[in-house]
Amino acid sequence: MRYPAGFPVVGMVGAGQLARMTHAAAIGLGVGFRVLAADPADGAAQVCGDVQVGDYAALDDLQSFAAGCDVVTFDHEHVPRTHVRALADAGHAVRPGADALLHAQDKLAMRERLMPLGVPCPAYASAPDPADAAKHVRAFADEHGWPVVAKAVSGGYDGKGVWVIDGPDDLAALPPVPLLLEERVEFRRELAALVARSPHGQAAVYPVVETVQAGGICVEVLAPAPGLDEDRALEAQQLALRVAGELGVVGLLAVELFETDAGVVVNELAMRPHNCGHWTIEGARTSQFEQHVRAVLDLPLGSTVPVAPVTVMANLLGGEDPDVYSRYVHVLAKDPSVKLHLYGKQVRPGRKIGHVTALGDDLEQARERARDACAYLRGDT
Amino acid sequence: MRYPAGFPVVGMVGAGQLARMTHAAAIGLGVGFRVLAADPADGAAQVCGDVQVGDYAALDDLQSFAAGCDVVTFDHEHVPRTHVRALADAGHAVRPGADALLHAQDKLAMRERLMPLGVPCPAYASAPDPADAAKHVRAFADEHGWPVVAKAVSGGYDGKGVWVIDGPDDLAALPPVPLLLEERVEFRRELAALVARSPHGQAAVYPVVETVQAGGICVEVLAPAPGLDEDRALEAQQLALRVAGELGVVGLLAVELFETDAGVVVNELAMRPHNCGHWTIEGARTSQFEQHVRAVLDLPLGSTVPVAPVTVMANLLGGEDPDVYSRYVHVLAKDPSVKLHLYGKQVRPGRKIGHVTALGDDLEQARERARDACAYLRGDT
Repeated sequence: MRYPAGFPVVGMVGAGQLARMTHAAAIGLGVGFRVLAADPADGAAQVCGDVQVGDYAALDDLQSFAAGCDVVTFDHEHVPRTHVRALADAGHAVRPGADALLHAQDKLAMRERLMPLGVPCPAYASAPDPADAAKHVRAFADEHGWPVVAKAVSGGYDGKGVWVIDGPDDLAALPPVPLLLEERVEFRRELAALVARSPHGQAAVYPVVETVQAGGICVEVLAPAPGLDEDRALEAQQLALRVAGELGVVGLLAVELFETDAGVVVNELAMRPHNCGHWTIEGARTSQFEQHVRAVLDLPLGSTVPVAPVTVMANLLGGEDPDVYSRYVHVLAKDPSVKLHLYGKQVRPGRKIGHVTALGDDLEQARERARDACAYLRGDT
Repeated sequence: MRYPAGFPVVGMVGAGQLARMTHAAAIGLGVGFRVLAADPADGAAQVCGDVQVGDYAALDDLQSFAAGCDVVTFDHEHVPRTHVRALADAGHAVRPGADALLHAQDKLAMRERLMPLGVPCPAYASAPDPADAAKHVRAFADEHGWPVVAKAVSGGYDGKGVWVIDGPDDLAALPPVPLLLEERVEFRRELAALVARSPHGQAAVYPVVETVQAGGICVEVLAPAPGLDEDRALEAQQLALRVAGELGVVGLLAVELFETDAGVVVNELAMRPHNCGHWTIEGARTSQFEQHVRAVLDLPLGSTVPVAPVTVMANLLGGEDPDVYSRYVHVLAKDPSVKLHLYGKQVRPGRKIGHVTALGDDLEQARERARDACAYLRGDT
């Protein structure tokens, strides 16, 4: 027996940075942690003691993986729902389950579920058939105006799978996939509300954060969202708790939000540890990774209180020069308090290869420290 | 190549809880981490992605292990110094090196080195030959009085290898090993000063802590040591920094101290992450495990500032009932802020199988929370 008697094994399908950081949390709790990795060089597969190499889209691989686990969860949203259902039908505890995951995998299903609940969403329409997508976009624009935001119904992430159609001239750029069309929301900024929910229904919500985007990629997270009205923060948290409950989410739910003059509007959902929660590793009493493990094991959830007035997380994107490690010495010498997290990825320009966290009393100082460290690690300075 | 280009591999000889927690820290930094495990079921071997099973006392095993590492360090003090030296002679970076390790492996050598430096130590004498140990103890008692504390010169840990000889009637209990004899220090309490030192000589010191012992085993660490006079804290920190420098320690040095009416007296030295520093995982900006990795890689050291007014770490010792995990639900439900750390060990009564950390503003509350959680996990309540 690999693990001590009585301790369960959590299996995570996918072995990227989320699994890598979840592994570190599972070490503390002492529970077993196993990953299904596409490649032994995946970030989590490099560091985890319990790795199965296999294909998350192959039911056979999923079945043999699940056989060694007490509960199966996910590092990404790409596992076919039919497979998720098949695992559950075979008696495996799969968390979140297929019925909940649908709303993280299928943006149209998400909208069609949230709207009747009265959850604020942008106006939307479906353009399921690429052959007449342009016609749908024109009709949608007639009603809601240009630009029209076209999103791939499934498979998008990090700004991929989103096209902003400014007018009729852009229609040729529409991709040949089923689309969700949305009005472009005039927002002040983007926020995120992160909650955890357990099978027995306990839920815990983190402070609402601001996510700063550049080119469709989150570059910075400010925790808590600076200057956010208390009522609005509460509104966002209650919304996330309600969505988690209504959809039967188990584990983490990240609700990406637009803040508008009138309130908050739901942009996207994710049902796993999420970039908007990386700040919690140092910045909250319980990290999102530990929280996810506790939730999927149906253990009581941990305190989400922040441990510092301000935490800033900056994503580290790869630069032209791959030699990140040689720059550690300068970054760590300049700022003995900044925390680095590298994901074990080969460096490619623009690729998320890690993140940096800075805690403090002053937002602008913490931002500058996190940004400085990232810029230096990237090789920009 | 297992790890991204340019990132070094730290090899730790030994795969117990110290290696296990160091692994979690190395995941964050993104550096490679490899352990030499006596058994694949060892705590760190369960969770680490890069494990060699072998004998730390066999030079062949150490050599093949070191061949895959950029720097070799230790989870325990039991590697023969001749082997440590042989690795260094073969060109491997071994940190700490044999000359420093001597003082953690050989208590007599430690005393003989510290005394001329003017470092406060108890009166001591050597009883190298078991055949006439009783004679030495009597002579020592004639000069310094009873009781006499007899310590195995090498190989002791956690109260093992220490015998308190209260008078002539106890002489029959002397073990047949080379002994260091010491006067029993009349102390108020035990303290520990933890420092890190890098090859280029940078050093960083943590707040001085109080270590609470029961039956020769540390059961609780209070950080910072409550009510400790500022000058005395500074004295302890400066002493630890000086010892680290004089002995050429690289990595962590834990100096276990007695606090007496007159000042502090050195009890023991350890050159590795140490139980007295487990509180730093949540309680300090840089954990001792990250700090050790940074030190042995000659990276700039991290900030040692505490993140809360009070951190209490309580060791979890195994009880009669091995089913620790089933008690998680009660402990976590009662206290959503307490942090559990389990080491992947099978439960045996009295065995250190994990620890619990509680942070807060009030010492007695934090102590009660940590103790409560441990008592419950052990099965006492």
